[in-house]
Amino acid sequence: MNKKVSDAVIRRLPRYYRYLKELERIGVEKISSRELSECMGLNASQIRQDFNCFGGFGQQGFGYYVKVLRKEIEAILGLNTEYKAIIIGIGNIGQALAGYKNFIRDGFRIVAAFDVNHTLVGNTIKDIRIYPMSDMKDYLKENNIHLAIICTPEAAAQQVADELSKAGVDGIWNFAPIDVHVDGICVENVHLSDSLFTLTYKMREADQAGVY
Amino acid sequence: MNKKVSDAVIRRLPRYYRYLKELERIGVEKISSRELSECMGLNASQIRQDFNCFGGFGQQGFGYYVKVLRKEIEAILGLNTEYKAIIIGIGNIGQALAGYKNFIRDGFRIVAAFDVNHTLVGNTIKDIRIYPMSDMKDYLKENNIHLAIICTPEAAAQQVADELSKAGVDGIWNFAPIDVHVDGICVENVHLSDSLFTLTYKMREADQAGVY
Repeated sequence: MNKKVSDAVIRRLPRYYRYLKELERIGVEKISSRELSECMGLNASQIRQDFNCFGGFGQQGFGYYVKVLRKEIEAILGLNTEYKAIIIGIGNIGQALAGYKNFIRDGFRIVAAFDVNHTLVGNTIKDIRIYPMSDMKDYLKENNIHLAIICTPEAAAQQVADELSKAGVDGIWNFAPIDVHVDGICVENVHLSDSLFTLTYKMREADQAGVY
Repeated sequence: MNKKVSDAVIRRLPRYYRYLKELERIGVEKISSRELSECMGLNASQIRQDFNCFGGFGQQGFGYYVKVLRKEIEAILGLNTEYKAIIIGIGNIGQALAGYKNFIRDGFRIVAAFDVNHTLVGNTIKDIRIYPMSDMKDYLKENNIHLAIICTPEAAAQQVADELSKAGVDGIWNFAPIDVHVDGICVENVHLSDSLFTLTYKMREADQAGVY
């Protein structure tokens, strides 16, 4: 696989995957890059270029088999396997993610939650048991956990990330409103407000242009 | 303002805003593009180029006043005003967003929620009253609502978006796991799983390279 795939291309892959799953669901068997570009609002040559980063998936002028392409991209995204995940911090966002059924569909299994709040510890949420934060280290030693989802307040996030890194999880999906930095494991920092502020930018621009 | 600001630049603005707020909070008064680039993990010339899209905010070789720059970007993002918002669909994600305190800090006020589930209607969540879905149209007529947050299941999202568009909200922040399309109002489709799949891509790549 080409190691120099740009971040922009990588970030478009989940979007291709979503659209292909939807096309497959509604029974579309074959699609051209032009048709795919129209339904996704992307440029057809960009789609072909993106796919070429991975050796291309179709023949010129022939188009793509939707199911084959979906499976290829699924494998590239590492989604042809099961991930065991834990949630750290079971507040608003943690609880929402614990109950988010779509993750299970995509092969993610949340097996435990951890929180410093002793009134939560011992309870279950959507069949996920909540353990005290102090048990996390031992839990990670005894269980092969691939993924940790940080949903703690800002102040705790970096320390939790450091502990996860030492314990050897493979990846951190961070929802705390601060970027966490750790060496040696993969991290995705999610900032919900970034997309909200992109929206307000567009709203302000539309308002100034008077187009709406 | 330059109308041709690219989507990539627009999407970096909220990130600049976050870092500048943090720098201001810890008492940093002035920063060079080089220093900013180091703490953000971006290229200094990219930062200067991005800022130049908006006329630039500093003098060559002098750096930026953090507070001034933060205020400029805040205004560009349309965050120097208050937004009244409603949530449609008060399930897992809807409830999490209703309780997300950071939004209030940034000028977003959630004033009502709507749901089809009659057992929820009449209750409040974090002081936000839940109304029946059938009341939404009238509510929007009687109240000046800027922003609607769609947290419905996939199947309902497009119809809700169409109703919001007719009712004249300015923007839609959509968390349903399907892109909604409406003419005439600004939309941001949020797909939480996109960042999760970017993470699994990186985890798979790291695993194959054996770097971790």
